[in-house]
Amino acid sequence: MSARIPRVPGFRASGVSCGIKDSGRDLALLVSDRPAAVAGVFTRSTVVGAPVELCRARVRRGRAGAVVVNSGISNVAMGARGRRDAEAMAAAAGRALGLAPDEVLVASTGVIGEPLPMSKIRRGVRSAADALRPGGLGDAARAIMTTDTVPKLAVRRVRIGAREVTLAGIAKGSGMIEPDMATLLSFLLTDAPVQPAFLRRVLREAADASFNRLSVDGEGSTSDSVLLLANGAAGGTPLRGPASPGARAFRNGLRELCEELARALARDGEGATKLVTVRVEGARSRAEAERAARRIANSLLVKTALFGGDANWGRILQTVGAGRTALRLERTEVALGGVTVFRHGASSGPAARRRAAARLGRDEIEIAVKLGAGRGKARLWTCDLSTDYVRINAEYTT
Amino acid sequence: MSARIPRVPGFRASGVSCGIKDSGRDLALLVSDRPAAVAGVFTRSTVVGAPVELCRARVRRGRAGAVVVNSGISNVAMGARGRRDAEAMAAAAGRALGLAPDEVLVASTGVIGEPLPMSKIRRGVRSAADALRPGGLGDAARAIMTTDTVPKLAVRRVRIGAREVTLAGIAKGSGMIEPDMATLLSFLLTDAPVQPAFLRRVLREAADASFNRLSVDGEGSTSDSVLLLANGAAGGTPLRGPASPGARAFRNGLRELCEELARALARDGEGATKLVTVRVEGARSRAEAERAARRIANSLLVKTALFGGDANWGRILQTVGAGRTALRLERTEVALGGVTVFRHGASSGPAARRRAAARLGRDEIEIAVKLGAGRGKARLWTCDLSTDYVRINAEYTT
Repeated sequence: MSARIPRVPGFRASGVSCGIKDSGRDLALLVSDRPAAVAGVFTRSTVVGAPVELCRARVRRGRAGAVVVNSGISNVAMGARGRRDAEAMAAAAGRALGLAPDEVLVASTGVIGEPLPMSKIRRGVRSAADALRPGGLGDAARAIMTTDTVPKLAVRRVRIGAREVTLAGIAKGSGMIEPDMATLLSFLLTDAPVQPAFLRRVLREAADASFNRLSVDGEGSTSDSVLLLANGAAGGTPLRGPASPGARAFRNGLRELCEELARALARDGEGATKLVTVRVEGARSRAEAERAARRIANSLLVKTALFGGDANWGRILQTVGAGRTALRLERTEVALGGVTVFRHGASSGPAARRRAAARLGRDEIEIAVKLGAGRGKARLWTCDLSTDYVRINAEYTT
Repeated sequence: MSARIPRVPGFRASGVSCGIKDSGRDLALLVSDRPAAVAGVFTRSTVVGAPVELCRARVRRGRAGAVVVNSGISNVAMGARGRRDAEAMAAAAGRALGLAPDEVLVASTGVIGEPLPMSKIRRGVRSAADALRPGGLGDAARAIMTTDTVPKLAVRRVRIGAREVTLAGIAKGSGMIEPDMATLLSFLLTDAPVQPAFLRRVLREAADASFNRLSVDGEGSTSDSVLLLANGAAGGTPLRGPASPGARAFRNGLRELCEELARALARDGEGATKLVTVRVEGARSRAEAERAARRIANSLLVKTALFGGDANWGRILQTVGAGRTALRLERTEVALGGVTVFRHGASSGPAARRRAAARLGRDEIEIAVKLGAGRGKARLWTCDLSTDYVRINAEYTT
C-alpha cells in the first residue's frame, strides 16, 4: 500500500515497535518542520486519561510541532504518575526533535490501569525520530492500532486560490461501542495555512459531521482525541474565517476526510461484518431524529438481526418506540438496503422482506426510516454485532 | 414442580397449546371467581401493541374478571385488524367464562407484524376454559414463555390483621434488552381485598422497585404489561390506603414478589450465564446513581467481560465516565463479587484482580461502585452477554 500513502508537505511521520505490545508497531511520531496551528476535539467523559488532560491544555495555545502516540497501554486512571508519564513522553519527543516539551502533544491507547513502560517509550521515541520520513504516515497508522484489523488513512486535495493543499489523516478505534482497547484516535495534517481560531471551528464542525456520527452511543472512551495540525507549508494567506478565499473548499475537504476515516472505523468495528448507514427522516426535530438513529445504531437486536441477515423491521420500530420518539405509525416507512419493508402502518409483505434480506448480505447497507412526524433528519454510521464481537471482548485478557 | 405451584383462593388458571407456536403451550387463562380490583403498568413506548391499548382503557375502570394471554405472535403494528383481534380474543374468553367482554384483559407476546390466527385462538380459549383449575398457574407460566428457558412463578403470604392472604405471580421475558420475542409480561394475583385506587398505587411502587430495576435500558418493548388482580376472597375490610391495617405488610409482600420475579427474569436473560446486581453509591443524586448503574448494566464491554470472567474495572469506570456521571476518581471504589479492585484512584493490584476474577465464575455476582461525589444510590439487576445471545438473536428467524 506504500504507493498510496499520502504525504503532506512539511510533515514527516514514523511508526516503530518499542515493545509495549507483544508484537507489531506501537509508537508513532508525527512532526511538522515548522510550528503548526493546532486544534483538537476530545472525549467528554468524566474519566479521562492523562494524555487528554495534557493535550487539552496545550492545544488551547493554538500551536504545536509534533504528536507522539503509543498503543498498548492507555495511561488512564494512573493518578499523578500518569500525568508525570504523559509529560515525560512529550519531553522525550521534544528532546529527540529539538522542540520545547510543550510543543509536543501526546496520545495513548490500550488497556486502562497499567503504568506506561517509560524506558521502552524513551527508546522508542528515539528510534521513531530516526525513522521519520515524508512517507511515514502508513507506519504511523499501523503503530496506533489496537484491535483494529486494518490501518486507516485518508487524503484529500483542495484548491485554495491558485494553490493546491493536502489534507491527510490517520485514525484508529473500533468506532462502535468504545472498548477500552478501541479508543478513537485520529491525527489530521494539512499544509494549508490556517489561523488557530478558525482551525478550531472547522475541526469541531468536521468532527460533529463525522466522528460524532459513529454509533458511539454517547459512549466516548477515556481517551478519544482528534488533533488537526496545519503548518502552512503550502504558503499563501492564512484562512481566517468562512469568508476567506478557499475556506469553503478547505472545510468541505476536511469534512470529507473525516467522513472517510469515520466510515473506515465503523467498517472495522470489532467483529463487524458490514458497514451500516442509518438514516432517519420525518422526526419532530433534528435532535429527535438523531436520538432515534442512535437507538437503531446501538440496538443489540437490530445489530444482531443485521449480522444474521434478518430484515427485521419489527426490531427497528420497537427500539425507536422504546426511545419514546414521536412517530405516526400510519405514515412510518422502513427501508432496508433500499427495499421498503414497512409502509402505511403495515408490513410490505414476505416477498419484500426476502428481497431486503438478500440485500443484507452485502458489506455496506442502509437502514432508512421515515417517521412522518416532522422534518428533522439525521444520519449515523455503525456496524453489525457478531459472535466475534463477544468473543473478542470476553476472551481478551487485559 | 407441581407441589410448589402457588394457589390463590378464588382464582383458577390454565395454559394450553393451540398451535400458534410450533410446539408447547401458547395460550393462558387467569380467572377470578368474582369481580376483582385490577391495576396495570404498561410500556411507555410510542409504538404499542393492540392488547396494551385495550388493557390501558379497561384497567382504568378498576375491575376485571379474567386475563387471556397468547405467546408466539405479539399483535403489534397490525393497525385496525390488530385492535379487532384483541377485542375478539377478549370476547371469546368472555363467552367461555360467562363474563362481559370488557371484564377480560388481553396480552400477546411474540413476533411483530403477523396477524393472530383467530380460529386457533378461539379454540384455544375454549380448551383453556375447560382446563381451568386452582393449581393451574404453573401451566399458565409455561404458556406465556417465548425465548424463556424456565417458567417464572413466585408466591408470598402476608398477614392482614387476623387473616393470611396470598400474593402469587407469573412472569416472562428475557428481561435484558427487550428482544421482540421477549416482551416483559407479568400477571399477579391476590385474594387480599384492596380498593382499586390503592391497588394502582402499590403496583406502581412495586413495579418501580422491581421490573423497572432490570437493565431494560429504558428499552421497554411494545407490549410490556404487568397486571395485578385482587379479588378479596380472603375476606375482611378492603385496604384503602397506606394507613389501612395490614397495608404495610401487603406492600412489602407485593414488592418482594415482584423483586423475585424480576430477578428470575434477569437470570434467564437470553444467553445469560449469571445474574448480576449493580449497586452504585456516592452519586450526586439518586437519578445520577441510576443513570450510572444503567450504563454499567447495559455496557456491552462490561457484560462481555463478566461473561469472560475478566475483573475489568477499567471498562466499568469508562462507561460511567462516558455517561458523564460526576465522580471523584480519588475517592472512587469498584468491587466485583465483594473484592475491591479499584480504590483511591488506583488499581488494587493484580492479586485482588485475580481474586475478583475467581468470584466472577459464580452464577450470582455483584458490581458495587462508590463514586465519592454525593449520597445518591441505586440498584439494578442484569445479566452477562454471551456469544449465545448473539447467536439466538442473529439466527432466530421471525
